[in-house]
This record gives sequence, structure tokens and C-alpha cells, in this order.
Amino acid sequence: MIALTLIGIGTGSPGHLTRDGIAAMAAADLILIPSKGEDKADLAQLRQALCRRVLASPPPMALFDMPARGAKDGYRQGVEAWHDAIAEQWEKVIRSHGAIRPALLVWGDPSLYDSTLRIAERVARRLPLTLRVIPGITAIQALCAAHAIPLNAVAEPVIITTGRQIRDHGWPPGTDRAVVMLDGDCAFQSLDPEGVQIWWGAFLGMPEELLIAGPLTEAGPRILAARAKARAAHGWIMDIYLLQRRRPAG
Amino acid sequence: MIALTLIGIGTGSPGHLTRDGIAAMAAADLILIPSKGEDKADLAQLRQALCRRVLASPPPMALFDMPARGAKDGYRQGVEAWHDAIAEQWEKVIRSHGAIRPALLVWGDPSLYDSTLRIAERVARRLPLTLRVIPGITAIQALCAAHAIPLNAVAEPVIITTGRQIRDHGWPPGTDRAVVMLDGDCAFQSLDPEGVQIWWGAFLGMPEELLIAGPLTEAGPRILAARAKARAAHGWIMDIYLLQRRRPAG
Repeated sequence: MIALTLIGIGTGSPGHLTRDGIAAMAAADLILIPSKGEDKADLAQLRQALCRRVLASPPPMALFDMPARGAKDGYRQGVEAWHDAIAEQWEKVIRSHGAIRPALLVWGDPSLYDSTLRIAERVARRLPLTLRVIPGITAIQALCAAHAIPLNAVAEPVIITTGRQIRDHGWPPGTDRAVVMLDGDCAFQSLDPEGVQIWWGAFLGMPEELLIAGPLTEAGPRILAARAKARAAHGWIMDIYLLQRRRPAG
Repeated sequence: MIALTLIGIGTGSPGHLTRDGIAAMAAADLILIPSKGEDKADLAQLRQALCRRVLASPPPMALFDMPARGAKDGYRQGVEAWHDAIAEQWEKVIRSHGAIRPALLVWGDPSLYDSTLRIAERVARRLPLTLRVIPGITAIQALCAAHAIPLNAVAEPVIITTGRQIRDHGWPPGTDRAVVMLDGDCAFQSLDPEGVQIWWGAFLGMPEELLIAGPLTEAGPRILAARAKARAAHGWIMDIYLLQRRRPAG
């Protein structure tokens, strides 16, 4: 039986690691590190550096190439095939190392817009596997902490959504507060900015952290400029934002 | 200048504490521990026990009585007056101890359905204050980790809402997935259970942890029974659940 652990590591700061997370890293006999090529090389390096930073003698780490995502079959089918291909890679690496306590370090938390749990389910169909999940600090918590703001208005709901949803469907119904993730194209540009407040953050918890907040009318253009500049400088960017709109009349 | 730190401590497990959280606890010169009377005495004790568990020489801790919440002025006004009264208590304790690096240990994360940030703003009007927030593991992450499930369906939104919202307004519009918090009365009973899946957890991360999942039709009654029993046994309960409904036709 193979005991696989998915460890939420927060958003890049060693300070985000939990006691459970560090203990699980130390207990692993192999840490699988996905490598996405040069563009996001920093992330593979960051995971390795985290292990070395918090563990006196880190377990062996196995870098593996992440398969490329095919776009031919539409979004959902493309994702399914991609997850299958990643599961095959995990299986190959676990088998070739004879690992019985492998672990993966998951950016943020394994529950939030992350495919690791779905890939682990696939691997469990091919290998005898038990699964343990260690929760981690999400970009949502890191964003709110950095701005020192609450996520929700008192007793009010908040929706967590994606850039695609905002672009395709506009402001989400039923709430005046929305966290937007997975947004490569600043979907807030598609909204009427009147009466909307934004709190934006990139590289949260990392030395490169960027924060901008204000009315969307004036903060929006500043975010577009800061985001383009940072992305050019680093080759990649991870960002997130919270929107609050003035409750429409009636 | 007083440097106040709000430290997210997760949901009761010492394993949820982050490296930043532990460092901030150690750096404080006073830890304020709210005491809510006998009913929730466990929580004050739990905070003190956490400090002693992870710090060799914890800073002084000051227990203070939480003011009672007046119900006379309606929900929102009642909350405002209550927050004012708590802010006065904080100020009194900070002044009487001459603390310059006070800290509060916040259950879960300070951003999520928690009043600590709003109280800190009030204190900042009375004392020269800088504020730092350390993010913590929320009950949402702890719930998903315990059930080893994703929070969101692939590329889909999820709403975070309250028992009151569900009871007063039914299923939230615009999403098929909802996390329900602050629900003392199992508001899921007010929903049509057909085609709804529930993942419920109480005392997440603590030795008393309870987990129930399944179709709401059959899991709902089991949760009601388990919740009543646990609440009677412990004198209090903290729980949360995630609902997923089958997308309505059309």
C-alpha cells in the first residue's frame, strides 16, 4: 500500500508552512516536484528551496516534466486528457523510485482550483493508494492578510470565481463581493467599474509581493500596468483579487 | 506606537499553526485571550494550551471577559455596539499591561466571518496602532482536507455563505456549490434535498473531529443526530458544511 500525501504549502513563503505540513514533508520518502519548463522554473526551484529551508535532511526529490495541455478537444475534455497524462507521470515516478510514502507540495491548498486531488484519484485506480491531505494557506487568506481586510462583509456571502466566469457572465448574481482567481487577462476590465472597489495582490507572501487597492476606476489601470511589468520581469505571475460593489438600488 | 498582530491559528490543531504564526506568538509581549464564560471555556483553554504546546517560554497571557451581545437594536446595530464594547476591553487590557506588541489568536483566519479586524480598526481610533495579520488555516480548508475533496468543481465558482442566508433566501443563485458557515440550526433542512450532496465536519482538526458525507436525503438526518449529541457532550460545537447540487435542467 502506498501512502500519498498532498501538502498545501501556501503561496511561496516558508512562513506559510504549517507544523503538519513540515512534519509530512519530513515523513515522506520521496517528494514529487512537477517541472513546467523554463517559464515557471522558479516554482520547481521554490518548492525545492522550501524543503531545504525547513528540513535539516530533506527526503529525495524527483523532478518530473509536466505534460503539455492539449487544446484540441475543448476546455473540459482537454483538462481530462491532461490529468490522465499527469497521473501516468506520477505513477511512473512513484514506481521507478519504489516510493511508499510519496508526497506532493501543492501551491496554496489542494482544495482550491487545483487539480492534484483529481490526479490522485486517477493514480489510485492504477496503484494501491491511501490519500492524506494537509490543508495550506490559500492565496485568498494571503490576499486578505496582506491588505488587512475581511473576506466577507458582516454576515454576507462571498463568491470565489474565475476570470473566465467574470468575462463570460459578468458580475456573479446573489453577492456584492467576489474573489477572482485563474485570471490571466484581468477580467475586471469587462465589468462596469462604477462603485466597485478592488484589492489586488501578486506573488503574495514572496519577496516580490505586489499590492494595489482602490476604486476600480483608478486602481484598475494601475493594476494592468504593474501586472504587465512584473510578468515581463519574472516571466510569470500569480495574482488574485477581491471585488466589492456598492449594492445596486432596489 | 503599539504593534498589534492578529494571528490565524487554524481550527484547534497545533498542526494548523504556521511558521509565521508561531514566530508572531513568540514575538508578542502579551497575548489577549477572550473568555466567553463557561459555555465556550474550552476555547480560551485551547488557545492557552496551543501557546504552551508550541513555545518554550510563552509570553504573558491576559484573559478578558467578552462583553455580552445585546439583541435589542436588531442584528446589525447589535453587532456594532458589541464590537465597540469589545474594543474597549482590548484597549483596557493593552493599557493596563503596558503592552507594545500585543497579539490575538484568531480561530481559523482573521478574514473569514470573524470580527477581530473590525474591532482592531476601532481600537486604532483610540490608540496609536499598527496592524499586522498572519493568515491561518480556515475551517473551509480543514473541511476539504478531512474529506479529501476539492472545494470547487473544475473552473466553477463556489459561494461562501451563512446559515441565515440559506434559511432566508434558499439556494444561492449563480452557483451549484456552497460552503455554509455560522449555522447553529442546520439550515440545510430548509432546502429541497433532492440531488444535493453534503460534506459536513465538526471540531475539524481536533481530537473530537466528526465527519459525515453523502446525499443530503440520508446524510442530513445523520448530521442532525450527530450534531445534537456532540453539542450536548461538549457544551458547544463548531461545524461547517459544503453543499453541491445537481445542476438544474435548462
